[in-house]
Amino acid sequence: MNYPGGIKKITKTGSTVNFKSFKNKGMNFETEINITNDYYIKNDLALIYKKPTPIKVVKVKISKENFVSKHKITDAYYEQKSTTDYNGIFRGKYIDFEAKQTKYETFNIKSNLHNHQLEHLKQVYNHGGIAFILIYFQKFDKIYLLLIQSLTKYLTENSGKSQIEYAYVEKHGFLVEQKFRPRIDYLKIVENIIESKEQYESKT
Amino acid sequence: MNYPGGIKKITKTGSTVNFKSFKNKGMNFETEINITNDYYIKNDLALIYKKPTPIKVVKVKISKENFVSKHKITDAYYEQKSTTDYNGIFRGKYIDFEAKQTKYETFNIKSNLHNHQLEHLKQVYNHGGIAFILIYFQKFDKIYLLLIQSLTKYLTENSGKSQIEYAYVEKHGFLVEQKFRPRIDYLKIVENIIESKEQYESKT
Repeated sequence: MNYPGGIKKITKTGSTVNFKSFKNKGMNFETEINITNDYYIKNDLALIYKKPTPIKVVKVKISKENFVSKHKITDAYYEQKSTTDYNGIFRGKYIDFEAKQTKYETFNIKSNLHNHQLEHLKQVYNHGGIAFILIYFQKFDKIYLLLIQSLTKYLTENSGKSQIEYAYVEKHGFLVEQKFRPRIDYLKIVENIIESKEQYESKT
Repeated sequence: MNYPGGIKKITKTGSTVNFKSFKNKGMNFETEINITNDYYIKNDLALIYKKPTPIKVVKVKISKENFVSKHKITDAYYEQKSTTDYNGIFRGKYIDFEAKQTKYETFNIKSNLHNHQLEHLKQVYNHGGIAFILIYFQKFDKIYLLLIQSLTKYLTENSGKSQIEYAYVEKHGFLVEQKFRPRIDYLKIVENIIESKEQYESKT
């Protein structure tokens, strides 16, 4: 599989925009995705939001301050996510994904994704949405978009093997450009996927 | 505007399924929608989830019990929602909505929806998604689906008037059937809207 639309890699040296990857700026992968999504929203390109972390509230303390009721949660705990972190709409399409980073040369599916998250992504694909995972390989400073179809294929062909090699992701995923603005331009990849699909469908 | 696909009203008496509206069962509107969404998911008809309530966590107490770390949130507060309560995918389309109930004969837009929620729904529509509000009028025991286009039109024509009359919703909204399973079958309306749109587009 080739990268759609000729995705360019910006090198750390010799880049025309004098760009340094977020790895060197001490930023967090999730934060960078949120900044990217903000950029998409502000520029009216897409509406993709991170879902809040589900929290089960047990106790709330209500106090009054200057006649305004204040709710303070004093007892609560984290619940397991039922779906993925990100979803939204882009060019009329439903988009759904999970973002993960790893310091290893392989990506451990089981430790990074719950079974119900994998199932959810498969269901999104079956319902006509675009579902994927974004993987940041810290060691190589590379971000890949791997469609759920490719991940499912891997799991089927490797009878549920948990580790996925970097080489497989490199071959079957799409390299996401890291740049100044937007930081992690994954929708450029998604756009090419949509266009390829539409071209394919119009031919058949 | 007519109800698409001839939506039938099930009367409290003479109903063949011996159905009573959730009003009489002491159930909550939101709970009923969640049960409906569960039904859609289990029957592989759609993937629509309620987003968790955003909570800003200030303090977490970590304790160990039988070698397992437990995270207890001891200080947190509710944050304002940035979008709507529900979103997901149905027949390849991005769906986004907010559900509200009122005990009055009119629906107060300003007290039920934040400005940024209205903006969000408009943006969803502009990006090709299906955006609406579900309003439950307790007094009449009726649920209506009102598309964001209709709501926007109302606000434009009535120069930002906050109250929206029941008669307007009755005329420009779509009556949602309350039945045994699924409880609040709003996707039947959405399905008809998608089909009408597709038929319209194939003619032009």
